Amino acid sequence: MNINEIVNKGLERFNNEYEPYSRDVDSDINLADYIDHTLLKQDATEEKIDKLCEEAKDYNFCSVCVNTSYLKRACEKLNGSKVKKCVVIGFPLGACSTETKAFETKWAVENGADEVDMVINVGYLKSKEYEAAYNDIRKVVEASGKAIVKVIIETCLLTDEEKVIACVLSKEAGADFVKTSTGFSTGGATVEDVQLMKFVVGENIFVKASGGVRSYGDAIKMIVAGADRIGTSSGIKILKNKEVDLGEY
Amino acid sequence: MNINEIVNKGLERFNNEYEPYSRDVDSDINLADYIDHTLLKQDATEEKIDKLCEEAKDYNFCSVCVNTSYLKRACEKLNGSKVKKCVVIGFPLGACSTETKAFETKWAVENGADEVDMVINVGYLKSKEYEAAYNDIRKVVEASGKAIVKVIIETCLLTDEEKVIACVLSKEAGADFVKTSTGFSTGGATVEDVQLMKFVVGENIFVKASGGVRSYGDAIKMIVAGADRIGTSSGIKILKNKEVDLGEY
Repeated sequence: MNINEIVNKGLERFNNEYEPYSRDVDSDINLADYIDHTLLKQDATEEKIDKLCEEAKDYNFCSVCVNTSYLKRACEKLNGSKVKKCVVIGFPLGACSTETKAFETKWAVENGADEVDMVINVGYLKSKEYEAAYNDIRKVVEASGKAIVKVIIETCLLTDEEKVIACVLSKEAGADFVKTSTGFSTGGATVEDVQLMKFVVGENIFVKASGGVRSYGDAIKMIVAGADRIGTSSGIKILKNKEVDLGEY
Repeated sequence: MNINEIVNKGLERFNNEYEPYSRDVDSDINLADYIDHTLLKQDATEEKIDKLCEEAKDYNFCSVCVNTSYLKRACEKLNGSKVKKCVVIGFPLGACSTETKAFETKWAVENGADEVDMVINVGYLKSKEYEAAYNDIRKVVEASGKAIVKVIIETCLLTDEEKVIACVLSKEAGADFVKTSTGFSTGGATVEDVQLMKFVVGENIFVKASGGVRSYGDAIKMIVAGADRIGTSSGIKILKNKEVDLGEY
């Protein structure tokens, strides 16, 4: 099958069989395992990156998520800990050339990245250039070696149909995760989007909810909806306010 | 002199000698020569890029400014015209690794870019890692071949002192222009910032005003303040409303 046929098959399945995903979550869930502790602001200083890394070690977060210019520093600060190093690729517009994304991925993996969160080319997707959008992801997957690849589809800019297609292309290209948002566009993760994405990618690919997840209740809702990872800069608040938020939830 | 000495000398000159730059502008100025006709939105489709290129040819704009994933398409559409191809590098955060910016620059120049607008690493600048911030620009200049290099300093995130330092580093690294803004952060070009930047870089390096320049009057004010290039998505409106805006101005 070519890419257009695969896309059409994915859309047909969605249109005929869609059911919002939902699952039970244990009350003793260890949320820290789910959290990518994130700092991607343009003006983030070294001092703040160091603090992020210290916090990640203190709270046993799954990873720290930083821009590639801070990868080496994060590796030094996290040396000897179990916290993974996650970086963003082609971030946040996803509009740089495919070659640039592949280069940045290879560079990051060679310099210690365990996980790479790339941004899909939204322009290609909206132009219905599915082969180009697929290839853009595929080249990153090929450059990623043993690293985990997450594809940020930027749900807030997409129609439901485009969300389905973005997930189909990511799955076909061999991504490990689809991720809702960069946090730099017009909106973040929603329960409905996480459910849709989980339905499309199935059991063997995971969903990362990111953008606007700021409370324990938010995080639990995303996991119930199908998320296996949470990208947030509010990880500490989320963990500390467990009791308060559970009351609301 | 090492970089820190150069920075200190630049700050000293600014603190002791600063005067807001101002110059006369001919009333018959051809504004189209100054305009980089710009479309950098994450969800820009091929159709909109094609339209941008057609408009640039019709109005004789200096260049089109696009993300690198659309460079090849812009080259095809502008083939045979005098309109230059300008791309953005490490855009809009400037927080990718130096190696990635250098790669993207080399790739862009090899694929037809005449001008590259790179984003400075604001985190390095704010961490006072001036050597790293300088090197980040220098590697792009070295990769740029014959292409013009503009350094976007993202004025809205900087103190006046940081603006001065950013201009000093750009000049020292061999940039051709300093540019105010990405248009993706908290603010755009101001007359005061253009004046400051022009004072710091002097006569042989140019200033590009970008972000929020939307009228003929805005554009003229920026040129009076020292800008030699205007980055805008409102180029056609600017040219068409000359009479209206001159009345206000």
